[in-house]
Amino acid sequence: MPRPLNKPELKYPPSRAVRVKNVTIGGGSPVTVQTMWKKPLEAIDDALLAGIGALRAAGCDILRFAAPTLREAELLGELQSRLDFPLVADVHFDHRIALECLRRGVPKLRINPGNIGPAWKVREVLEAAKGAGAAVRVGVNAGSLRPALRREPDTVKAMLASAEEELDLLEKFAFSDTVFSFKSSSVETTVAVNRAFRKSHDHPLHVGVTEAGPLVPGLVKNSAALYALLSEGIGDTVRVSLSDEPRIEVEAGREILRAAGLSKRGVNLVSCPACGRSEFPVREFCERLAPRLAAFGKDVTVAVMGCPVNGPGEAAHADLGITGAGDRALIFKKGAIIRRELIEGALEAFLEELEKL
Amino acid sequence: MPRPLNKPELKYPPSRAVRVKNVTIGGGSPVTVQTMWKKPLEAIDDALLAGIGALRAAGCDILRFAAPTLREAELLGELQSRLDFPLVADVHFDHRIALECLRRGVPKLRINPGNIGPAWKVREVLEAAKGAGAAVRVGVNAGSLRPALRREPDTVKAMLASAEEELDLLEKFAFSDTVFSFKSSSVETTVAVNRAFRKSHDHPLHVGVTEAGPLVPGLVKNSAALYALLSEGIGDTVRVSLSDEPRIEVEAGREILRAAGLSKRGVNLVSCPACGRSEFPVREFCERLAPRLAAFGKDVTVAVMGCPVNGPGEAAHADLGITGAGDRALIFKKGAIIRRELIEGALEAFLEELEKL
Repeated sequence: MPRPLNKPELKYPPSRAVRVKNVTIGGGSPVTVQTMWKKPLEAIDDALLAGIGALRAAGCDILRFAAPTLREAELLGELQSRLDFPLVADVHFDHRIALECLRRGVPKLRINPGNIGPAWKVREVLEAAKGAGAAVRVGVNAGSLRPALRREPDTVKAMLASAEEELDLLEKFAFSDTVFSFKSSSVETTVAVNRAFRKSHDHPLHVGVTEAGPLVPGLVKNSAALYALLSEGIGDTVRVSLSDEPRIEVEAGREILRAAGLSKRGVNLVSCPACGRSEFPVREFCERLAPRLAAFGKDVTVAVMGCPVNGPGEAAHADLGITGAGDRALIFKKGAIIRRELIEGALEAFLEELEKL
Repeated sequence: MPRPLNKPELKYPPSRAVRVKNVTIGGGSPVTVQTMWKKPLEAIDDALLAGIGALRAAGCDILRFAAPTLREAELLGELQSRLDFPLVADVHFDHRIALECLRRGVPKLRINPGNIGPAWKVREVLEAAKGAGAAVRVGVNAGSLRPALRREPDTVKAMLASAEEELDLLEKFAFSDTVFSFKSSSVETTVAVNRAFRKSHDHPLHVGVTEAGPLVPGLVKNSAALYALLSEGIGDTVRVSLSDEPRIEVEAGREILRAAGLSKRGVNLVSCPACGRSEFPVREFCERLAPRLAAFGKDVTVAVMGCPVNGPGEAAHADLGITGAGDRALIFKKGAIIRRELIEGALEAFLEELEKL
């Protein structure tokens, strides 16, 4: 059921465009999906490249790495030269690491000018970024405000004040390729602070919830906050943050964009929750099917339904669907049954029909 | 960090109250969490009761069962008499099953008067429900509209028209203890149709996304839609629908209420996503910790953080937190380190401190 991409009613003026290598954040460009590599970066080997390839296939547009030492700066430069999409270096406290990343071609830094040290260090970093055509993300986190701001009882106000301090520094050195993020572990705070900043600034926003938790609570918090913001037209790039695999962060980010009508990339898998009437192993079938769909580029809706009574009817909107009746699987197309198979052979038969679409 | 429960700006008049045994849906009562039993109901044995007990402990307020035959109606009556919270029978097509459920004390039916048959059957069911003081949920699903309505290109309009037909039947027989639900597998449609109905009717709303899919896409769609609605004050009871365990549906429902500021029940587990700087096995620790928190009744925030540099500071809002430095786990309280333990003994030490709070 192709439908036009959502054009949310523009409550806010468009954000400015910030270029990061071959990707544009803001300025009306498609919203991008990010994640962060979670293991220490020790070498550029096949395992690393395969892992990155899998994230890319799942829909990762931008990938961030922590760069706690000069060694990571060096490795990130080498890694970037081998990839066709942008990396971001996450740098704290030590401006020499930031300079080294820029020198080696990393196209974006995540820094807080305020924790890079005295003004001359900030200037050096921002001038190097300008010279390299690199972008900067300033990340304002509710949990890491400076002590004076922490005493402010209104967290939203404190986060905005912190951003203004960072903005003063950026403007002092006439740096403008800046993306901002405002993260909290509270959905309410995250939504409120992004709305407030967006009202008065045109910097593109990287949106996410921080310390969101493990899979279930983490997905709930990220989906709630990011959908609320994106459906209002706020957010230029997203990062779902979970205490789980980066691949899941990317998949969830893509799903959130799809829910907000901002992306149609890949297969939309719908499936019923199953109940006492079910005659088909919905969950097990989904678990076997989902990995086979990841690299499937077509924009189609696929349905896995528990019972033959409601299944084909309820999922008549699906391009292809499957349900069960006794020992048979019924494959249906736009609600009409086209094939009956033994349950054992159902997955392969289903994938065969999917290829034909 | 205790904070008052959210009182969303009332854009809509309050819903009417519908009583279901000892639970009230609507009328300003706390929003309740539902799920559905997914296996056929064959006997009331220890396994069933233990499973229901686990759902109850996770925060399930109302539990639904499919009742495809008279046998389930009989079992549900017996089961209800042994439980201190309400059951719902999901009945289609056969009005005798609905009557049997009511006769045996099931306090709520999920039916669609329109598919129960001719008017005399609908009247019998509604009169029996009135006599028994039972409630009815009318479930309007985008996928199961009658053929004439399916031809309407605007799904929201078609679903509202279907509800009006059901309402006519209910009003004809002066039945008013009705909860409505409007479900679609599209987040956008689900949000739009609930908003539209709520503008003109005061029936309490059971909110959910149907055929939401397996865990990751399913949690994204449910969280996005339900948070969007609840944060506007729409929704009196929620059901997260996933092709996964009912327990996860309940946990996710509770998390969504918490995100919307509508519930403070239980422990708020926050944890960082971990990155290349991590010195603590965040995900593994969360996986071991989470099940131990399920039955822990206190309203506290617990943080599991990857690194000692940011951890205690970023999670200073947490009542209790843990992170690692080398081979030690650091336990902190409101940001201040109170204990250092070997990683192996960290979980038990952490639970010990949690008990002391």
